[in-house]
Amino acid sequence: MDVSSLTLNRLSLYLRCLRTLQEEGTERISSQQLAERFDLSAPLIRKDLAQFGEFGIRGIGYEVDHLIDRLHSALGLDQQHPLLVVGMGRLGTALARYLGFNDATFRVVAVLDNDAEKVGKEVGDLTIRHTDELEEIVREYGVELGVLTVPAEAAQPMYDALVDAGVQAVLNFAPVSLQLRPGLPSKSVDFRIHLEELVYFLLAKED
Amino acid sequence: MDVSSLTLNRLSLYLRCLRTLQEEGTERISSQQLAERFDLSAPLIRKDLAQFGEFGIRGIGYEVDHLIDRLHSALGLDQQHPLLVVGMGRLGTALARYLGFNDATFRVVAVLDNDAEKVGKEVGDLTIRHTDELEEIVREYGVELGVLTVPAEAAQPMYDALVDAGVQAVLNFAPVSLQLRPGLPSKSVDFRIHLEELVYFLLAKED
Repeated sequence: MDVSSLTLNRLSLYLRCLRTLQEEGTERISSQQLAERFDLSAPLIRKDLAQFGEFGIRGIGYEVDHLIDRLHSALGLDQQHPLLVVGMGRLGTALARYLGFNDATFRVVAVLDNDAEKVGKEVGDLTIRHTDELEEIVREYGVELGVLTVPAEAAQPMYDALVDAGVQAVLNFAPVSLQLRPGLPSKSVDFRIHLEELVYFLLAKED
Repeated sequence: MDVSSLTLNRLSLYLRCLRTLQEEGTERISSQQLAERFDLSAPLIRKDLAQFGEFGIRGIGYEVDHLIDRLHSALGLDQQHPLLVVGMGRLGTALARYLGFNDATFRVVAVLDNDAEKVGKEVGDLTIRHTDELEEIVREYGVELGVLTVPAEAAQPMYDALVDAGVQAVLNFAPVSLQLRPGLPSKSVDFRIHLEELVYFLLAKED
């Protein structure tokens, strides 16, 4: 299926909206209701969904469960993506055991650290391996995604090592701006942003 | 200063863009350059910034450092906001020590758990206190923000306890949909979303 990058972003937005509806127990929804509830455009929703053969039934709408399944497959979430976590500090250990990283779509297949003291210890079902084995591990498990939870000063060399080892995308939790490899999807997570947003909300409330 | 909630959102976006420029060593930038670089609208940027007395100089633009300071103060980030973290598991411990939660704007003033085994242990400079003391702690430190890192089943009762104790906004890391108190800013962090985005990027690349 040939879906543009812009459409992918919108499909992922629809998916999040539909999951909210599913959690609330909603079974069917029209494009108009989706649009009103989540501040989207109904004609655009219909056009996007029609692109991969989904047409709402007039007066009934779309079936939420079915549509979620279709979006999962359109977005590549119906396949399992093996990932590894580098940096077995507190955050890395927490993320390696995090359920959202261990389900039908994602699976932590290896955990690594460069500290010989940590290598060989268990994190959940996995044994910590040395970062020297990175390339071998990526090949062995067909690792697609690398999660970086190393200290700031180690982040750039470890990012480069991940990319050189063949990882296809990187999620970085280290609090630094990385020099990114062109064309390789990467994303940095900054928890501070979330706190800042809450402060803005508080300000907006006071107005 | 009376700034609408919509403008606040845009100001926070400008702030993030300006921080990127600051990290790269850029000293001055025009609204036009800001617009082109970050896919924003130049007239809207000028209008938003003029609202709090900032006018770029023709042919020179805005001073990045100065503008960041002004945005910090407009967004309430020039004051320190005391926060507490409830749930001293791996993630909670990591977040309590996270530098982004301990700077000029944010400060972890208390860490709590309901497990008597953990109470009294040290996390960085702080001693873990029992969740029974929540109300007292919020009053003692004037806590504004609560960070929730408890297991899924404990999240709703602990969210309610935070709100009842007088916390003004909640950042939730527990993987559940909370029944939120109306009018109280809350935000849930789902790490999985970031991995999903990377998968979409990979798909988009293959197209």
